[in-house]
Amino acid sequence: MLQLAEQLLNGEKRALSRAISLLERGDAQAPALMGRIHPHVGGAYTVGVTGPPGAGKSTLIARLAESFRGAGSSVGILAVDPSSPYSGGALLGDRIRMELHYLDPNVFIRSMATRGSHGGLPRVIKGAVRLLDAAGKDVILVETVGVGQTELDIMGVADTVAVVLVPEAGDAIQTLKAGLMEIADVYVVNKADRPGSQRMAANITASLSMSGANLPWTPPVLPTRAVTGEGCDALFQQILGHRDFLTQSSRLEERRARRRSQELLEILQEELGRRLKERVNDSPRLAQLMARVRDSDLDPYSAALEMLEDASLPLAALEPIP
Amino acid sequence: MLQLAEQLLNGEKRALSRAISLLERGDAQAPALMGRIHPHVGGAYTVGVTGPPGAGKSTLIARLAESFRGAGSSVGILAVDPSSPYSGGALLGDRIRMELHYLDPNVFIRSMATRGSHGGLPRVIKGAVRLLDAAGKDVILVETVGVGQTELDIMGVADTVAVVLVPEAGDAIQTLKAGLMEIADVYVVNKADRPGSQRMAANITASLSMSGANLPWTPPVLPTRAVTGEGCDALFQQILGHRDFLTQSSRLEERRARRRSQELLEILQEELGRRLKERVNDSPRLAQLMARVRDSDLDPYSAALEMLEDASLPLAALEPIP
Repeated sequence: MLQLAEQLLNGEKRALSRAISLLERGDAQAPALMGRIHPHVGGAYTVGVTGPPGAGKSTLIARLAESFRGAGSSVGILAVDPSSPYSGGALLGDRIRMELHYLDPNVFIRSMATRGSHGGLPRVIKGAVRLLDAAGKDVILVETVGVGQTELDIMGVADTVAVVLVPEAGDAIQTLKAGLMEIADVYVVNKADRPGSQRMAANITASLSMSGANLPWTPPVLPTRAVTGEGCDALFQQILGHRDFLTQSSRLEERRARRRSQELLEILQEELGRRLKERVNDSPRLAQLMARVRDSDLDPYSAALEMLEDASLPLAALEPIP
Repeated sequence: MLQLAEQLLNGEKRALSRAISLLERGDAQAPALMGRIHPHVGGAYTVGVTGPPGAGKSTLIARLAESFRGAGSSVGILAVDPSSPYSGGALLGDRIRMELHYLDPNVFIRSMATRGSHGGLPRVIKGAVRLLDAAGKDVILVETVGVGQTELDIMGVADTVAVVLVPEAGDAIQTLKAGLMEIADVYVVNKADRPGSQRMAANITASLSMSGANLPWTPPVLPTRAVTGEGCDALFQQILGHRDFLTQSSRLEERRARRRSQELLEILQEELGRRLKERVNDSPRLAQLMARVRDSDLDPYSAALEMLEDASLPLAALEPIP
C-alpha cells in the first residue's frame, strides 16, 4: 500500500487507477493511503461541469481539457455516471475518451458510477479528486449529470462550477430558478445555434440581476457550440477568471475549509451507518424491533426512538446532549 | 398533537397540511404523530412519476388524478421539487394545480422541496406518503424530477413507478441504460407526436427484451400526449394492471416490507448524524480534530478513524463488531 502511494505520488497512471479502485470498493487500507498522500494535496484546481443529459457536457469537457493542456496544465477528468443499483454503468468517461482524438499521457480519464451510494454525488468522488491532486494533476474536471440533488453536491467538490443548459430543455428556466441559481459560477448555453438560445441566455441574465444585485462575483452567461468549439475559449477564460477571483481573496481557502469539514462529517456518518447495520443484525433486541417494523407491527419512527433511547442497546451511546 | 392526529384521520385537509409541515421541520412531536397514525396506514396505493424536466410529468399527473377520481378514488399528490439549499422553491405543485382546472376537495396537492436533504429523495417524503395514506387517500401520486440518483429513490416510495421520457431528450437512451432500466414498471414516451418518438419507444422495447427475458412483469412502453390526453387512459389501465400483478402475488407486501426496513435504517442514520454534529461541537477533543481537518493539517479519513477508535470519545461506543 505504501508502495502504491509512492507510485501514485510519482504520477504513475496505473497506481492512480488502482488507488481509485481501492477507494471505490471501500478497502480497509483506504484511510492509510489517504493519510499518506495528504501532505501532497492542494495543488490542483477543480472545475465541476454539470447539467441535464444531452446538454453536451462531455464535448465541453473535452474542449476544456484541450484548453488546459494547451496552457501547459496536466488534466484529470472524473465522469460521474448516474447508474442503477443493479446494472451499474460507465458511459460518460467513454464518451469523453471518444471526443479526445489524441492519446495524451497527461490526461487521465476515469468514470465513476454512483450506484449503491445514497448521498447524491458519492463521497468517494471527493477522495478520487484528492488522489488526482496528489498524483500531480494541475486541473481536475468533474462531470456530473442530473437536475435534482446532484448539482448541489458538485459544490462539495469543485472550486468553480459551470452549469450547462441547452435551449431545448423545456422548462429549464424553472429548474434553474428552483435549483441551480446559487450553484453556478459560470453559465453555459450550449448548442447556441438552436432557436431559443438567445432568449434563454437573456432569461438567465435577468434572473441573475434580480436575485444577486450585490454579489461579489456575477456569473457570466456564455453561449457555446461545443461541437465546433465556438465560445469554448471564452468559457476557458471565464473559468480562469473565476479562479483568479477566488485566489485573490481568501474565498478559495474558505470554500475548501468548509468542504473538508463537511467531508469529515460525511465519512463519520457513513461509517456510523455501516456499523449501525451490523449492530441491527447482531443485537437480538434490535433485530426484533426491525422485524416489527418490517411486518408493519410498529412504525419506523417509534422503533428508531426506542432503539436510540434504550440504554442497554449499543445505539444509545450517542444520546443527545442534554 | 393527538388532536391533530384525530383531525388528520378524519380526513381534514388543514390537519394534513399541518402534519406534513410538522414532519418537514423535524418537529420533536413527529415520532408520536407517526406512531398514532400507524395503525391506519397501508390502504393507499402509491404511484411514482419520474423523468427529466420538461417531459410533461405535471400534465400527466393531472391526467392520472382525473382518471383515478373518475374511478371513485380519492387522490393525494406530492410534487418533489429540486431546490437550492439557499432559495428553496415550490413549483411543480403549482403547475399541477394549474392543470387541474376544477377545485376538487378529494384531490390534495402538496409541493415538497428537497433542500437541506442529503439523501436524494428526502426521507420526509416517505413520512408524508404515510400521512396521506392515514388521511384516507386511496391513491398517492408522487412526482420527482431528475436523471441521476433521484430516480433510484422513487423506488423507496412507490408501489408502481412510471418513467416519463420525451423524444428530444438527446441521449436519453444512454441515460435509460445507465440508470432507469430496473426502476420503471411502466415507460411513458410523452409528446409522442414529435419526431423520433416511435424510434425511442422501439429502442426502449428492444433494450427491455435484451435485458429482461425472464422477468415476471414486462414494463409496457406507452406513447402519450398528456396535453391532449391521448394515450393517458392506456397509461391509467397499465398502472392498474401493474397494481393487480403486485397484489395477486406476495410481491406488493415484500416490496413494502423492504421499504419499511430501509426507512428505519435511514431514520436511525439521520438521527445519529444529527447527534454526531452536536457531539463534534461539544467535545473539545473532537472539535480539535475537526479544526485540524478544516485547516488541512490532517486528512478527513485519518481524523474519522481517530474519532471512532478513541474509546474515551463518545463516538467509539459504536465500535465495529469484532
